[in-house]
Amino acid sequence: MRFCSDNAASVCPEVMAAIADANRVDTAYDGDALSKQLDGAFSDLFGTQVAALWVASGTAANALALAAMCPPHGAVVCHRDAHIQNDECGAPEFYTHGAKLFLAEGEGAKLTAAAAAELLAGVRNDVHQTQPAAISITNATEYGLAYTPDEVAAIGEVARARKLGFHMDGARFANAVAHIGCAPAEVTWRTGVDALSFGFIKNGGMFAEMLIFFRPDLAEATRYRRKRAGHLLSKGRFAAAQVLAMLEDDLWLRNGRAANAGAAQLAQAAGARLIHPVQGNEVFLLVSPAEAAALRAQGFDFYDWGPGEARLVVSWNQPAEEIAALAAAIAAL
Amino acid sequence: MRFCSDNAASVCPEVMAAIADANRVDTAYDGDALSKQLDGAFSDLFGTQVAALWVASGTAANALALAAMCPPHGAVVCHRDAHIQNDECGAPEFYTHGAKLFLAEGEGAKLTAAAAAELLAGVRNDVHQTQPAAISITNATEYGLAYTPDEVAAIGEVARARKLGFHMDGARFANAVAHIGCAPAEVTWRTGVDALSFGFIKNGGMFAEMLIFFRPDLAEATRYRRKRAGHLLSKGRFAAAQVLAMLEDDLWLRNGRAANAGAAQLAQAAGARLIHPVQGNEVFLLVSPAEAAALRAQGFDFYDWGPGEARLVVSWNQPAEEIAALAAAIAAL
Amino acid sequence: MRFCSDNAASVCPEVMAAIADANRVDTAYDGDALSKQLDGAFSDLFGTQVAALWVASGTAANALALAAMCPPHGAVVCHRDAHIQNDECGAPEFYTHGAKLFLAEGEGAKLTAAAAAELLAGVRNDVHQTQPAAISITNATEYGLAYTPDEVAAIGEVARARKLGFHMDGARFANAVAHIGCAPAEVTWRTGVDALSFGFIKNGGMFAEMLIFFRPDLAEATRYRRKRAGHLLSKGRFAAAQVLAMLEDDLWLRNGRAANAGAAQLAQAAGARLIHPVQGNEVFLLVSPAEAAALRAQGFDFYDWGPGEARLVVSWNQPAEEIAALAAAIAAL
Amino acid sequence: MRFCSDNAASVCPEVMAAIADANRVDTAYDGDALSKQLDGAFSDLFGTQVAALWVASGTAANALALAAMCPPHGAVVCHRDAHIQNDECGAPEFYTHGAKLFLAEGEGAKLTAAAAAELLAGVRNDVHQTQPAAISITNATEYGLAYTPDEVAAIGEVARARKLGFHMDGARFANAVAHIGCAPAEVTWRTGVDALSFGFIKNGGMFAEMLIFFRPDLAEATRYRRKRAGHLLSKGRFAAAQVLAMLEDDLWLRNGRAANAGAAQLAQAAGARLIHPVQGNEVFLLVSPAEAAALRAQGFDFYDWGPGEARLVVSWNQPAEEIAALAAAIAAL
Repeated sequence: MRFCSDNAASVCPEVMAAIADANRVDTAYDGDALSKQLDGAFSDLFGTQVAALWVASGTAANALALAAMCPPHGAVVCHRDAHIQNDECGAPEFYTHGAKLFLAEGEGAKLTAAAAAELLAGVRNDVHQTQPAAISITNATEYGLAYTPDEVAAIGEVARARKLGFHMDGARFANAVAHIGCAPAEVTWRTGVDALSFGFIKNGGMFAEMLIFFRPDLAEATRYRRKRAGHLLSKGRFAAAQVLAMLEDDLWLRNGRAANAGAAQLAQAAGARLIHPVQGNEVFLLVSPAEAAALRAQGFDFYDWGPGEARLVVSWNQPAEEIAALAAAIAAL
Repeated sequence: MRFCSDNAASVCPEVMAAIADANRVDTAYDGDALSKQLDGAFSDLFGTQVAALWVASGTAANALALAAMCPPHGAVVCHRDAHIQNDECGAPEFYTHGAKLFLAEGEGAKLTAAAAAELLAGVRNDVHQTQPAAISITNATEYGLAYTPDEVAAIGEVARARKLGFHMDGARFANAVAHIGCAPAEVTWRTGVDALSFGFIKNGGMFAEMLIFFRPDLAEATRYRRKRAGHLLSKGRFAAAQVLAMLEDDLWLRNGRAANAGAAQLAQAAGARLIHPVQGNEVFLLVSPAEAAALRAQGFDFYDWGPGEARLVVSWNQPAEEIAALAAAIAAL
Repeated sequence: MRFCSDNAASVCPEVMAAIADANRVDTAYDGDALSKQLDGAFSDLFGTQVAALWVASGTAANALALAAMCPPHGAVVCHRDAHIQNDECGAPEFYTHGAKLFLAEGEGAKLTAAAAAELLAGVRNDVHQTQPAAISITNATEYGLAYTPDEVAAIGEVARARKLGFHMDGARFANAVAHIGCAPAEVTWRTGVDALSFGFIKNGGMFAEMLIFFRPDLAEATRYRRKRAGHLLSKGRFAAAQVLAMLEDDLWLRNGRAANAGAAQLAQAAGARLIHPVQGNEVFLLVSPAEAAALRAQGFDFYDWGPGEARLVVSWNQPAEEIAALAAAIAAL
Repeated sequence: MRFCSDNAASVCPEVMAAIADANRVDTAYDGDALSKQLDGAFSDLFGTQVAALWVASGTAANALALAAMCPPHGAVVCHRDAHIQNDECGAPEFYTHGAKLFLAEGEGAKLTAAAAAELLAGVRNDVHQTQPAAISITNATEYGLAYTPDEVAAIGEVARARKLGFHMDGARFANAVAHIGCAPAEVTWRTGVDALSFGFIKNGGMFAEMLIFFRPDLAEATRYRRKRAGHLLSKGRFAAAQVLAMLEDDLWLRNGRAANAGAAQLAQAAGARLIHPVQGNEVFLLVSPAEAAALRAQGFDFYDWGPGEARLVVSWNQPAEEIAALAAAIAAL
């Protein structure tokens, strides 16, 4: 029973079916009928005109978004625990050609507007210091917290005041939106976000993430960068197909809700062991090494997340009996 | 009836089935059971120990291979018509951090050992000139020619004498091997090739190309570069599955032969119109604009390839009746 | 008697004196009184508002200029024999983060508008091909030819039509202007040039070259790139001092004329041996290996420049007797 | 009376004289007689075989050193207050093509071995995290502290254990060595340092800093990188001349001692106002805005260095009366 990562989950049947349906000859790259529907489909979802590009990984989506906003001699403000800082082997630096990440603090990997503003205030405006060009947040955060529209708006205001780009790493955007219960627009462009890495792979997709530009002009150079990075897939219709399938009848949101519900069940069992509130599909809890071993002995796989801490991730289709069993096991510790 | 590009072809049933079979939870990235089989499977195929990495595009495979061989201040010798020069929007420059491509001549986009040696002889060995670090050839070439083992060996000798890396862009490696009829080893490591971009997508795959290092030590830094470029897919098992399916019973070779046979049929019809010998699945022929229009009026899609020239590409599963119809139409021009 | 390179010449007395005069405490970097005069001094010289930045080498000036005009995924059109292609170890690729150089032809390393236009016409406008963003010419060329205002204007027109930046590598700008006899404006901004690498080091300076932006907005990001490249010297007043000394009473032009006159004297002696017309301070001539050896035996140092060819460079203060002796020796061959 | 920065100081007479002496024709770049003496001169100074390259700025020296040790996908461990992090506009990221700086803590900008080890222990050894490749320290630190040989050795040990390169930014190396009173070897290669940016400009030089490789093999690729960055000056003999003049009779050390003595005099006057011990030529002291204004009203120029803090820097030739006057003014606050 694996609670290691939603990254390792299976692909949902609607996506598999859409891939099978797409198996016919069509124009290569993103000239096919399906890829051409993406701008429209995401513009509808967000209620504004967007440019929507598929790429093969969230790392590529994040790095391309940052490269669209930040010159090589610029900097991106993000949380110290951000995925772009710790888990992408320097992809932002690669795609931006050497921009810096400026690291700010915040509970549960959540960047606060105040922390961002304080960091920015400390940067001298001269050629000796790398000048900030963008802010990036992860929603849901690396510790499973969802930003409220007000929180996003406050950061958006900081970005606007300094003319910085604003990027959201939404590897688990579905989980965040499912938790907040707002329209996707409310935590993105309406509150200042310029570009969103909209994750589908952890949520039931196979190999397609979307890079959504709420300022469509940012997409122009990005199309060259995408090709140049080897992310303009030649049979792109299979990427488009899976994303369109996820949008159909809000499958992405239903999958997000399902995973969140499982995590909530674990959270209830965990009680005082919880390190962070559970607002998505991730549960961080205090467990001694002996307790962790005991859980593993019962067949539960998961990652240690620092000394005395464990991370449990519930996938979109995690079997109910696995969740119930783990909840019981935690409660029984 | 599309003869534009094998890039746009459908995915072969064995690959679709393998993808469906892979749809279970497994370790993320390349830690899954299927990805772990790749080194072994390709070592068997080539009869030597290799390191085998999947990536999502041939552009990424090529650029990662070159980055493994060439420092930022180095140069790669290739043909003036090479895909890496003309069709990858500077991916080699991106991944190598600014290496140069030195362009040599040769009939039909085929680099000759003599042309490479002559170019190399003209480079001063001082810090003012970019120093060559690698040679890259495309096999089959951009004009559909296959290198013989002797031709590869002659270039390999030039590379060895200057201590250069030797890369083969095998986007259509299957077609080349099918034409030459040799063991894959004979046109790769046995004749000096250090790294091969082994193409599967044009040949019936969906989104997986293989980067094969015949010097496995080159793979080490490449694993970091792959992650950093966003090409370490989180559900990598689906990439591995399709490649393993293509290796099974030499499906890759059978598909290559099928496409070649179709092209041969067109070549026969084309006769004196042929611009290059047909040794793979591509046919370049002389057609006036009026003739091209006539073919298109009969329902054949293809690309113009310079003034008075057209390119026809036969895919692995191009229907026999389409090929026959096109052959007849060409003969009737 | 050295005719190898003006690069190796001594520094002219006015520059030495200016450096000595600048030896007092002043604000660091480019905040000193002398550096602050540069924008004004060069705006006066060119008769238009410019931004003028010192750097420590012509390579840095060229590469910074190109980086200001060309994105990482862009290309710069230049002559096949351009210094930026052959003699800067990939500096343009380093500073632009991997842009390509597209190489055009032309007699005597002189790019023609027609050659540039033809090259540009051959570039497909799609994301697979690197898109041209700038044109760069060298004036005087690597073979010592000076562009007329009409020739520059024709290329400027090609650049304007494609919205490309236009850069002039003026490592020997003084020699070119001295030959043409026009105002500096006539072969720069009035004929479409956006940025000029204005060389002083070969012409009597010590370690300062100027990067002149005729579109001053291009200077903004360049100030960061200059710092980032380590070219914002901390005692920049010594760089500014030498350049200001060179502008005083048109010393730069007088030095250029002096060198040109010496080269003209050699050219007259060379007669039919000349490979290119002599329009600056460089003389390329046909000499057999035996003849070259004979000249060297008489104490003349110079570079071979291809088989059967030699390059002679006359410096701003080349002694008259050395020039006369070499002229006589050439005539006597 | 300027106590802003030694960067703005005048050039010492021996250097001016050496520059004047070097004003003759010699081979360009680093092929001249003076540049060729550098390897030997610095090998003598350090008592081991080194490779010694001049560059035009400390930023270039630091960035080239790091690029020699750290791949684009690697990281450099340094102090949070390091010059390479805060004051070089991302030069390390530019030259390394996007390596990260990992920031550690330590009193007075001094990195401790323990802090470095702790940071390193927190890095997962997988392809998702940027892997450390080097450690860099500044000696004297950005707050004017000098490392003892034992302190350097402890960090050297940490580097050795992880096979990391070890770089020392010695912009004020003279001040550090003057304070510690050891042989230069004791705080460099004997205690594990692989490369030293040996500063001369702040200490009486004009435009030459030295990059010293104690592992001479690291110099090889650096020669190409230096050219590519535009730091291979064409009249390099003037750079070599000033450095050789500084080595003569240990002028560099005498200048360092002189500046240190002035700072010590200020420190004595400052007493409890000192924020850090004074071990070089920099004095950081607590002063209220009113007090700072009072000092400025008396004609003393200096930088504020955070709220309620000021930095005073004494140059190699700061007049004794200026120092005495400032000391008195501080004492009188």
